[in-house]
Amino acid sequence: MSGNDGGAETPPTPPIGDGGADQLPQRALQDRYAPTSVCFGCGPANEKGLRIKSFVAGDEVVADFTPEPHHHAFPGVLNGGIIGALLDCHSNWAACHHLMQKGGLDAPPCTVTADFHVKLRRPTPLGPVKLRARVKESTGDRAVIEAELLAGGEVTARCTGTFVAVKEGHPAYHRW
Amino acid sequence: MSGNDGGAETPPTPPIGDGGADQLPQRALQDRYAPTSVCFGCGPANEKGLRIKSFVAGDEVVADFTPEPHHHAFPGVLNGGIIGALLDCHSNWAACHHLMQKGGLDAPPCTVTADFHVKLRRPTPLGPVKLRARVKESTGDRAVIEAELLAGGEVTARCTGTFVAVKEGHPAYHRW
Repeated sequence: MSGNDGGAETPPTPPIGDGGADQLPQRALQDRYAPTSVCFGCGPANEKGLRIKSFVAGDEVVADFTPEPHHHAFPGVLNGGIIGALLDCHSNWAACHHLMQKGGLDAPPCTVTADFHVKLRRPTPLGPVKLRARVKESTGDRAVIEAELLAGGEVTARCTGTFVAVKEGHPAYHRW
Repeated sequence: MSGNDGGAETPPTPPIGDGGADQLPQRALQDRYAPTSVCFGCGPANEKGLRIKSFVAGDEVVADFTPEPHHHAFPGVLNGGIIGALLDCHSNWAACHHLMQKGGLDAPPCTVTADFHVKLRRPTPLGPVKLRARVKESTGDRAVIEAELLAGGEVTARCTGTFVAVKEGHPAYHRW
């Protein structure tokens, strides 16, 4: 986690949501706190990655994502593995943002995924989707996040995951 | 599911395992039964996909996979979303192969993922990994599959997933 807050080149994207005061246009969490990350799912610097952009919107963290053609399971339907990758990384950002706020920190702690459980409710059409995530519970250095993926306003997948802030000495410490 | 068994261009790859009689060199399940699939995780025809190759090895279905550099979470470590995508598709093939055998069919039924639960035990170094999957339980048209991902002989992630054969009328029916 670089904590680097400078040099963002991505213009602000308005978050989805109902327009509360905390939902003013803002920079994505990834661009703000990890602009040099190369993570496949959420790294702004991974040109072949998914590059999700997560925004705080009230009690939720939300994102809009448009898959590329090669992200299909079969023509016209989004692959479940990609759905899992989106929900994993987006939920991880919901977790580290929550832990940052809870701890009164200036930057999110570096969190890693302990587990994530994806339930695919119905096929997801290959087109724009929305991600929503919120804290289900949090104790100490970890958070359990509930998230959904929506296509055309309909929830097509749900996810519950546990994310843990790593300490100095862990291989992921300060690596994103 | 095309059921197409002809025209494979991929040379046989010996499966991992202990060399039992059922582990002779063979074509991957994907090349044998879905050579035209464009699935991100396992489609032989998706040039930007993971193109996993799953082989039957006794009671297990196994695969070797080497990630590309952009599949990292951070330099040197494999992304959890990619791990989930590998385990999801590989487990799906273990399920449809099992249901094919159970039903005495000539080709696997078209199975889709109902859910998959990934537990990340430790960071997975970005290098060759192995996948192993087996049937935990199976009733009717569904199978619960247990799978692991190994790096350097060590289990770094586990997955349990449920996969269901879809019937005529489902959007995925005969689509891979």
